[in-house]
Amino acid sequence: MARKKVNLSDNLSTFSEHWSPKVVAGFNGNDIMVVKVKGEFVWHSHPDTDDFFLVLKGRLTIRMHDGDVTLGPGELYVVPKGVEHCPVAEEETHLMLIEPAGTPNTGDEATAAVKSQI
Amino acid sequence: MARKKVNLSDNLSTFSEHWSPKVVAGFNGNDIMVVKVKGEFVWHSHPDTDDFFLVLKGRLTIRMHDGDVTLGPGELYVVPKGVEHCPVAEEETHLMLIEPAGTPNTGDEATAAVKSQI
Repeated sequence: MARKKVNLSDNLSTFSEHWSPKVVAGFNGNDIMVVKVKGEFVWHSHPDTDDFFLVLKGRLTIRMHDGDVTLGPGELYVVPKGVEHCPVAEEETHLMLIEPAGTPNTGDEATAAVKSQI
Repeated sequence: MARKKVNLSDNLSTFSEHWSPKVVAGFNGNDIMVVKVKGEFVWHSHPDTDDFFLVLKGRLTIRMHDGDVTLGPGELYVVPKGVEHCPVAEEETHLMLIEPAGTPNTGDEATAAVKSQI
């Protein structure tokens, strides 16, 4: 990826499916990803990693058992490792995500969405 | 930081100094930071970590010996570990940065800016 910048909007314009993260860059063994989401994901947690969400467009509610967080553009939240959460977006919402490479997005290989490179 | 979202603009509005990163969240031992920059930083490299830059407002050129990258809002670049670089902004520019907690921003404790919590 040397010398090649990443334009988040340009990358988001190359696909339309929801809940299917695309890796746009790497940082110390973490995947920097963009994703389009709409509707409700599944309740899940990641036992070994925090979960980073930055809203680029739209609105995302991260439901947690002891309270929700709702994010608009330019707002981020890091779900601490082990905390069960369920992301929900009423409208189509664009996110930047960060996870260690290889992390299943549901916390479980069996139900995880496939991450692909752009 | 649990249940408290981070609004990047709100955090940026709380300070005015340049080249003085503020930690707004943590992710797996990394600092998520915002910073205002203007002018030319110093040439430096980080032997042990990649260096993540996302432009939120303004325009940043990252000079490298084999080519520059210029980023506008919504564009990011990860300088690979060990690659010498010099960030330059002609106008005041707002960035989100990610570095392992404790990384000196010049790659050298003696010349590093102090990172502070917001």
